[in-house]
Amino acid sequence: MTASLQAPLSQDLFNHRADDIAAAGKYAADHGWTPATSSNFSARLDEDHIAVTISGRDKGRLGREDVMVVDYQGRPVGSSHRPSAETLLHTQIYQRFPEAQAILHTHSRVQSVASRLYADAGIVRFEGWELQKAISGHTTHESVIDVPVLPNSQHMPELMAKVDAWLDAGKPLYAYLISGHGIYTWGRDMNETLRHLEAFEFLLGCELDLRRLTR
Amino acid sequence: MTASLQAPLSQDLFNHRADDIAAAGKYAADHGWTPATSSNFSARLDEDHIAVTISGRDKGRLGREDVMVVDYQGRPVGSSHRPSAETLLHTQIYQRFPEAQAILHTHSRVQSVASRLYADAGIVRFEGWELQKAISGHTTHESVIDVPVLPNSQHMPELMAKVDAWLDAGKPLYAYLISGHGIYTWGRDMNETLRHLEAFEFLLGCELDLRRLTR
Amino acid sequence: MTASLQAPLSQDLFNHRADDIAAAGKYAADHGWTPATSSNFSARLDEDHIAVTISGRDKGRLGREDVMVVDYQGRPVGSSHRPSAETLLHTQIYQRFPEAQAILHTHSRVQSVASRLYADAGIVRFEGWELQKAISGHTTHESVIDVPVLPNSQHMPELMAKVDAWLDAGKPLYAYLISGHGIYTWGRDMNETLRHLEAFEFLLGCELDLRRLTR
Amino acid sequence: MTASLQAPLSQDLFNHRADDIAAAGKYAADHGWTPATSSNFSARLDEDHIAVTISGRDKGRLGREDVMVVDYQGRPVGSSHRPSAETLLHTQIYQRFPEAQAILHTHSRVQSVASRLYADAGIVRFEGWELQKAISGHTTHESVIDVPVLPNSQHMPELMAKVDAWLDAGKPLYAYLISGHGIYTWGRDMNETLRHLEAFEFLLGCELDLRRLTR
Repeated sequence: MTASLQAPLSQDLFNHRADDIAAAGKYAADHGWTPATSSNFSARLDEDHIAVTISGRDKGRLGREDVMVVDYQGRPVGSSHRPSAETLLHTQIYQRFPEAQAILHTHSRVQSVASRLYADAGIVRFEGWELQKAISGHTTHESVIDVPVLPNSQHMPELMAKVDAWLDAGKPLYAYLISGHGIYTWGRDMNETLRHLEAFEFLLGCELDLRRLTR
Repeated sequence: MTASLQAPLSQDLFNHRADDIAAAGKYAADHGWTPATSSNFSARLDEDHIAVTISGRDKGRLGREDVMVVDYQGRPVGSSHRPSAETLLHTQIYQRFPEAQAILHTHSRVQSVASRLYADAGIVRFEGWELQKAISGHTTHESVIDVPVLPNSQHMPELMAKVDAWLDAGKPLYAYLISGHGIYTWGRDMNETLRHLEAFEFLLGCELDLRRLTR
Repeated sequence: MTASLQAPLSQDLFNHRADDIAAAGKYAADHGWTPATSSNFSARLDEDHIAVTISGRDKGRLGREDVMVVDYQGRPVGSSHRPSAETLLHTQIYQRFPEAQAILHTHSRVQSVASRLYADAGIVRFEGWELQKAISGHTTHESVIDVPVLPNSQHMPELMAKVDAWLDAGKPLYAYLISGHGIYTWGRDMNETLRHLEAFEFLLGCELDLRRLTR
Repeated sequence: MTASLQAPLSQDLFNHRADDIAAAGKYAADHGWTPATSSNFSARLDEDHIAVTISGRDKGRLGREDVMVVDYQGRPVGSSHRPSAETLLHTQIYQRFPEAQAILHTHSRVQSVASRLYADAGIVRFEGWELQKAISGHTTHESVIDVPVLPNSQHMPELMAKVDAWLDAGKPLYAYLISGHGIYTWGRDMNETLRHLEAFEFLLGCELDLRRLTR
């Protein structure tokens, strides 16, 4: 059952964004990044609404009926479903990054393991990898990209406060990990967001491999 | 040749459960969790019968003709085929867990290796992983999930006694490993059982990776 | 171009065996066990002939035209193609194991790495793995299965002499590895041979993982 | 939009080479060797032109419209698109190796990690692997194949000078790695180039595995 939207929210826009989310979900699931119905995805609809996956659905077989509309306070709009428990992490990113149009949160094994391994350091630093150029705004492997690792919490305001603190300190942010959990990343459209996700997954995998080989 | 069932066992019910088993088998085989015709699967039919895979079949290409009916003592009903040698481990779970409707037993490389590695400890403990929430009844990564590792045996009553002992001690049980062998897990329907299997496979993989990186 | 056979060799028999070889090749290639046109496969035709893959073909896209007939001295029959350079290793197995009907030789990464790692020991020993039961004649994980590792050579008689020496010593043989190279295994039909290949690939992978985790 | 070519460049030839590039790209992408729109591919057209992938395209979904023509100085011919930033590395190889007809440059995790690991040594040496025979001109595992590892640079002439220095020293060259980046390899047609790529990917993976197991 597709969410019915109040005017002036366009059903066409919703359908388009929900289809983007479903396609990205299939790609992520096919790569094994969304085990056991984990992960959640969203896309910005307008100044008041986002589209976000309904809690607990199989991320490899999403349809429009698995996506719902919420406002920027995370409240359902025109739906009695429960949005992902982490919806407020999505709305926070849309509010802090006006250019962000899509967000992907996944739980790959590499992401989960790296997030535990670097939890104490609170950061993963990427240096010297050509694939850093896949992150928008980076034109050389000589750049440095820091991805913070937040302690996990079931209480969203705690996580949001950590993200706000990082941003309020003026530090660049392209993605963040939550310990034992997964990654959040975003972009100016779904394709860029998928490229960022794929790049961070790759870079984290390289860091783990190199660590195994050089310790 | 589909098993012919005695009244009042419904052929429709058998077909439905056999189709569930075949779909789960394909999913598990596609992920490489059922090498060399290993693994076995079942579903509860009624108070007297379960459906279980016939011994030795390729788990990635199961049809209704690869599934048979047995009673709770593991005796074939309406079939001259030999059920999986481990059928009594299935019936034990259905008897001890009235809500269990489906059981999956697989042999992935991660399961086999982890079961050998933790055989002496007799247990794998999961703590701090968000994906623990995929196990029914768990709402936070702060929970602790213990999965026992039983010594392997070709004699089913030995294994059954270990499972009974664990349960009789009042300890929660969501799955168990058998050393050098694989995992048993179950759920309230086939979807939940698959989610549990996928979650435990993921969690075991994370534990092995983290151990490799931190020893 | 399918090989034309002299009477009394049946074209139907050849076609059937060539199709078996092609199907096994696709399975092995899909699993990544035949990189860069490596590997070779065969099936017994009759007391005087075997069917074997032509040298250098892509093992994931074999057709009947990629399979040729040779006699037990490895000489082409009814074909001007060059058989695999290792054809004599195939004919040796058919001569020493009258029940062998199919042989698969692959080059997976696990096989190549394990063969180097155990080259000095000259043997890989499997003990305590449930999947040993996938090797015909084994009914318990308590059995011991030894797979010899031969030094590599481009000179087939050298390799054949090592295989003969092992067999003449009365030791059981289900498969052998060649160092830096790959595995040979066989069975009473192509399905059994594939099951043996899949089981040894799995067991070698488990041994490598366990070694990485426990050294 | 397919590039329109000036006479006497044949549109048929371009289409044929672009289709080869697209097929190779799909194969490489399906194996995970081209993450996040990285990698670039080319084929020789004639004495004055090559076909090369346009910058930033998804390498798993290439069509003729994603391939453009450049001259041997890397200047676009009949196209306003931007060729890959590394086009001059392609033209250098075509100029130094008259028999080279196709070049593949990919970014697999194995390639990226190995290139960092062997960056200080400046070389990866392969010895004793049967799969070395997949590199044209090699007929035994007893050969030695050296693959240089160049320091990464965003400035192509720096990289070209390193390649020239290696060749001018009279050393054989079948492929080279760039640190933290990926591999370049080539062949007398696209099939041979793909075989070389697959062989080097395999050999690098074996070296990393063996190193993990024996350090």
